[in-house]
Parts: sequence; C-alpha cells; structure tokens
Amino acid sequence: MATETPLLVETQYYNIPENIQLDSGKEFGPITVAYETYGSLNSRKSNAILILHALSGDAHCAGYHSPEDNKPGWWDMMVGPGKPIDSNKYFIISSNVLGGCKGTTGPSSINPETGNPYGLSFPIITINDMVKVQKKLLEHLEIPQLLTVVGGSMGGMQALQWMVSYPDSVYSCIPIAATSRLSAQSIAFNEVSRQAIISDPNYNNGDYYDGPYPEKGLAVARMIGHITYLSDESMHQKFGRRLQFQEELSYNFLTEFQVESYLHHQGQSFVRRFDANSLLYLSKAMDYFDLAAGANSLEKTFSRSNGHYLVVSFTSDWLFPTYQSWEITSALQKLRFPVTFTEIDSQYGHDAFLLEKEQLGALLANFLESTHQQFEEELS
Amino acid sequence: MATETPLLVETQYYNIPENIQLDSGKEFGPITVAYETYGSLNSRKSNAILILHALSGDAHCAGYHSPEDNKPGWWDMMVGPGKPIDSNKYFIISSNVLGGCKGTTGPSSINPETGNPYGLSFPIITINDMVKVQKKLLEHLEIPQLLTVVGGSMGGMQALQWMVSYPDSVYSCIPIAATSRLSAQSIAFNEVSRQAIISDPNYNNGDYYDGPYPEKGLAVARMIGHITYLSDESMHQKFGRRLQFQEELSYNFLTEFQVESYLHHQGQSFVRRFDANSLLYLSKAMDYFDLAAGANSLEKTFSRSNGHYLVVSFTSDWLFPTYQSWEITSALQKLRFPVTFTEIDSQYGHDAFLLEKEQLGALLANFLESTHQQFEEELS
Repeated sequence: MATETPLLVETQYYNIPENIQLDSGKEFGPITVAYETYGSLNSRKSNAILILHALSGDAHCAGYHSPEDNKPGWWDMMVGPGKPIDSNKYFIISSNVLGGCKGTTGPSSINPETGNPYGLSFPIITINDMVKVQKKLLEHLEIPQLLTVVGGSMGGMQALQWMVSYPDSVYSCIPIAATSRLSAQSIAFNEVSRQAIISDPNYNNGDYYDGPYPEKGLAVARMIGHITYLSDESMHQKFGRRLQFQEELSYNFLTEFQVESYLHHQGQSFVRRFDANSLLYLSKAMDYFDLAAGANSLEKTFSRSNGHYLVVSFTSDWLFPTYQSWEITSALQKLRFPVTFTEIDSQYGHDAFLLEKEQLGALLANFLESTHQQFEEELS
Repeated sequence: MATETPLLVETQYYNIPENIQLDSGKEFGPITVAYETYGSLNSRKSNAILILHALSGDAHCAGYHSPEDNKPGWWDMMVGPGKPIDSNKYFIISSNVLGGCKGTTGPSSINPETGNPYGLSFPIITINDMVKVQKKLLEHLEIPQLLTVVGGSMGGMQALQWMVSYPDSVYSCIPIAATSRLSAQSIAFNEVSRQAIISDPNYNNGDYYDGPYPEKGLAVARMIGHITYLSDESMHQKFGRRLQFQEELSYNFLTEFQVESYLHHQGQSFVRRFDANSLLYLSKAMDYFDLAAGANSLEKTFSRSNGHYLVVSFTSDWLFPTYQSWEITSALQKLRFPVTFTEIDSQYGHDAFLLEKEQLGALLANFLESTHQQFEEELS
C-alpha cells in the first residue's frame, strides 16, 4: 500500500570507468552499478548514508517506481520521508551489490568480450569486492565521508568491511543481525543450497540463460534459506501444525501443512525474481567473509578502523545469533571504540531486521541523530 | 573395531500372518519384519526391552554380523554384554520400522500383487502404524509386557506411542531427544528434503528401481538433515572455518571448507545405503506425529497410559529442543505419573543420543535397574 505521499524514485546506473582489482587477484571490468538515492546531500556533505542490502535485496530500498507501483522498496518501513532513516534529513544511497542480478554487473550480465552472459566465467567475488565497487560509486557522487553505513545480514558484513577497508571515508557503522565471519553451520547451509542448484540438470554448469531455468534446484535452495531466516517460535506462531485446505490428514504426499505451502510459495516467487548463478556467487562471498582472517584477531582488524558503532542483534536469530554480534562488540570495546550493542527481543528470527519496525526504527533514528550531531561538531 | 569378545548376531525375519489396519484406514499386508535379539528372556518374562531406531537406523543395533565384520550395530555403545542396556541382564529386541529399507516391508519391497517394488503405491504410514507392527512381533515372541521401550529421535516418538497405544503391554518408557509432535520448523526441513528428492529427474515419480538412482536429490536431502542433527557449536569445534586441502582460499566453487567436504561425504554414503522413497515415507510419518491431536491435549492422551518414564534431552539439540521434552514431562507430572526428566549438557546437538556414552549410559543403566526391580515386585 502506498503512503499518502508516495516517494517516487528511479534506479540510476553508473558505469565505473576503470577495472577493479578483485581480492582473488583478478582485474575485472567493466562494472555497472545500479543505485538509488533519496533526499539531498547538504552543503557540508555530512548527511550521506549508505544502505547495504542482504542476499536477495537490490538498490530499490525505499519508495515506489511509479504512482501505479504497489510494492515499495525492501526497507521502506525504515527509509523515506519521516521514516527512521529520514530522507528529509539525510542523503541516502542504496546500490545493488557486485555479483547480484538487479542491475549491477553479475553472472547474468553480458560479457562484452563474448556477447553472452558470464555464467560461471564470472569471477569469484568477496564482500570486500562489493565494498570496493560501492566506494567507486561514492567517489562518483563526490561524497568524501559517509555519516553511516548500515545494513542487515550480508548488508551488515559489508558495513563492517567498510569500516576496515575505508576507515577515513565513513564516520559510523550499523551492522544489524550480522557477523564478523560466517560460521561452519552457515557455510554448511550455503553449500547445501548451492548443491541443490548445481544438481538441477537445467543448471547446465551455469549456462542456462538460453534454455530451461534450474527452477526446481533454486526453489529448494530458497526454501532452505527461508527456514534459516525464520525461527522455531515464529514458525510455530505463524503456522503451527495447521493444515492448508482440509481438516483431516490426507494420507498422501500433497502439500497439506500450511508451513509447506508457505515454503513452496517462497521458493516459487524467488525463482521468478532471482538469478541462480547470483545466489551461488553471493553465498560464496559470504562463506569467504572472515574479518579477522588476515590479522588473526578481530581486535587487530578493527584497530585499523575508527568511528562509532551501533551493533544490533535479535534474540531468536539462530542464523547469525547474538553471540556473533557480541564478538564484534567485544573486540570494539577492547579497543575503547564508541560502541552501543543492543539485542532486540524478537520472535522473528534473522528476518527481524526487515520486520521489527518500532524497536529497530527508534534505535536507528536516535543513533543517527546523535551521530550526525557529533559528526557536524567534528567537521567544524 | 571389535570388542574383545564380540557379540555375534543375526538378523531374523518374521512374516506377520495377517494384514494390518493402517491409521489411514487401509488394510495392508503382507508385512515382513526384520529384527534382532540380544540376551535371553527370563522365565518371568520381566526383562524384555524394545529398542526403537531413528530415521536412518535398522534392526542391527548391537554387535557384529560376523567375526570379520568391522562395523557394529548403530547403538553398540549402549547395547550388549556389560553395556548400559545389558544383554547379560535383559532380553533386547530391535526391529526395522515399517516403511524402512532394511528388511522390514517398505516402498522398495516387492509388491506381491505386481511383482514390482511398491514405490509410491506403498501406503502412507504413521508412527502408530510402525508400533502396530512391533506389537505383532512381540506377540510372535510371546512377550506380554515389555520392561521398557527406548529410542532416540523418531525412536522416541515410537516409544511414546507405545505407552498410549498399548499401555498394558509396556511398563516403562525412555524417549530420548524426542517430541510429542513435530514442530512447524521440523516439518519445513522434512518438506525441503522431500522436495530435493522429488525434484531429481531420476526420481521418476518414485519408480527408479530399474533405472538411474535419484542420488543427487537424496544427497541434498541428507545434507540438510545432517546439519539439523549437529549443532552450531559442534560444527564450530569440529570444522570451524578450516580449509580441506589448501592453506589459502581457492576462489572457485570447488569444495574447500572441511564442513563442505564432511557434508558431501555424509550425503554420498547415505545414497549408498538408503532408499529415497523410504526417506519420503518416514519423514511424512514424523510430520504426522502429534500425540495430542486426537485428545486435544497431551495430558488427556497420556491419561490412557500408565508406567514409568525417563525423559532425556540435550542442551544443544535444536531439532527437538529441550522445551519439547519438557512439554512431555510436564503433562506426565500433571497426571502424577512417575517421571524423571534429565537434560544432558552436550555440544553434539540432536545426534547426542548416539554419542553421549557416559552420561546417557549411566542414566539408562540406573533407570533400567530400578525399574526392573519395581516391575519384578509388582509381578510377585
């Protein structure tokens, strides 16, 4: 449903004029970045906020693309005029990640050297590579220092990476439902999802753009993912053991529990809107994410950074549980960095960052206001 | 590795002479039951214990099939001479479940009416149907009342069902890492596993016994299952983010983390030893399990039963978490039934019932000893 005065936005595209040096060692280009902006940059350039999306997100995080559009951006509850991340106060930038399939160059993009989609010839990318691309976009937008980088899940990983890779270009950081490194359990879930896709004969070694789509494998992968985004409690509340159509058990293999029907729907709708190869590349980038790896300690890694942190986790998130946010907070505290850690009581599991409007909204609005004030003071 | 005096056992087969009335309303037969026994029945028939296996188990729970056999039964750590479930003291029976693929009639068995494997023409079965078959076996063995029914996971569900279906035929019950009803989250994991199998083109609507095997789908299903059997903590301890072969990230999609390699191995070895249709039928039987369903309350359901209970859960089991064992215990306590509830501190997750030798062993041995004594007293 549209708000009373819908925010109308347009996705823009920036072609990075030079190649990017990837973490793998490869040079890669050309890269196009899809992005949107909301609000206006102030004269001191002190109010820029970069929003970083999770696995299945895109550049369109707020508002509508036309007056007839009935589906707002993925974080519209948080971003827009009068919202917690207020486009009346801040200049907000949101871009699709490298390797994605929503306008930024990824495996489904055309390789100009061959005239065909990259498929598996697309290079393996990392969270840090995504951040390098975002940095190029900000240089293009002539923003020397961001007020904040903020994101949930994979977006939170990018936010943390920003602090370490470009400490002078960002004043504060809000990782939500995030982690400083992917756990063995999360790598395991990602690998099973990839196997589900690769096992689909239509996957055809990633070269399926001209043929049938590996929709069954991708649907199974998304169903696995979706279970990890919810919680035992929220699934119990939402579905319990309720049946979908009938009152009695049917004694056949048709979908009968509501939770099964919900998962099927999630799987099917994902197939229509997401590229299977992108899921492979983005999940691999997450697997590779380990902020402490180079330095052998998270504290040492963060010592390169500076700035203010708001770390947020959710009680029922078992994919990136609170202890992982606490590891981040603890390392920052040892360095005596200004850090606020909040665990929000929520039954929604990992997806809570997309759902906990009131609690998360108040937290973000307050942190942004005080951080903006401090940033302004330091600039003067 | 064989113990010093290996227990040599042989799988036996019983052909139930009559059809079974299934919960679905169908009459089904003929049914063959694969079973093993260890130890001897005493003259008062007071020392019989029925062991109930989990999803991938079989009748062979203890000992070896030959002196050259180097793989003991699945619960050999718990069952055998001098073990916690001591075959020097007790007469122990273990059978393969209806719908399985290890000797008891299931979807891979030959339908005598067609001369071909049942496949999807096998009827949908329930946990209660499995128990009906076990009851026939015990009648054949002329055991009027069991000292104990004991099992972990799906085995624990059968144990609970025994108490409700045949209260006069069993004196005590040990459900381990079990639940009185499958949660929405568990149904969700089961459904995704089934979808992985059904999506494999080799599955061929369940009719694959003459053609290529749906091994990719079954491997993905098993990998999903395996993640749920472990815990975040045990995966971290066992694998962490360690790489399998090299020191550095390889920047390709080959298996590189140890946890990936482990899952692949689990998937592959399962494919060699388990029937895909059996996984579908057994997981569906678990989905249907809801002891309270008919009576609308667990307390009411258990009021039909009597006997002594030892309920065991494990701290890190997130598939059938402690709160589910507590729901069972709480209902029994309200009925003032003798019930002992123990939550064992373990990092092994759901699989702890197969691994926590010392703590679980002592608990079982003590409970069996005192319960046996009480049973003997009541008999005299």
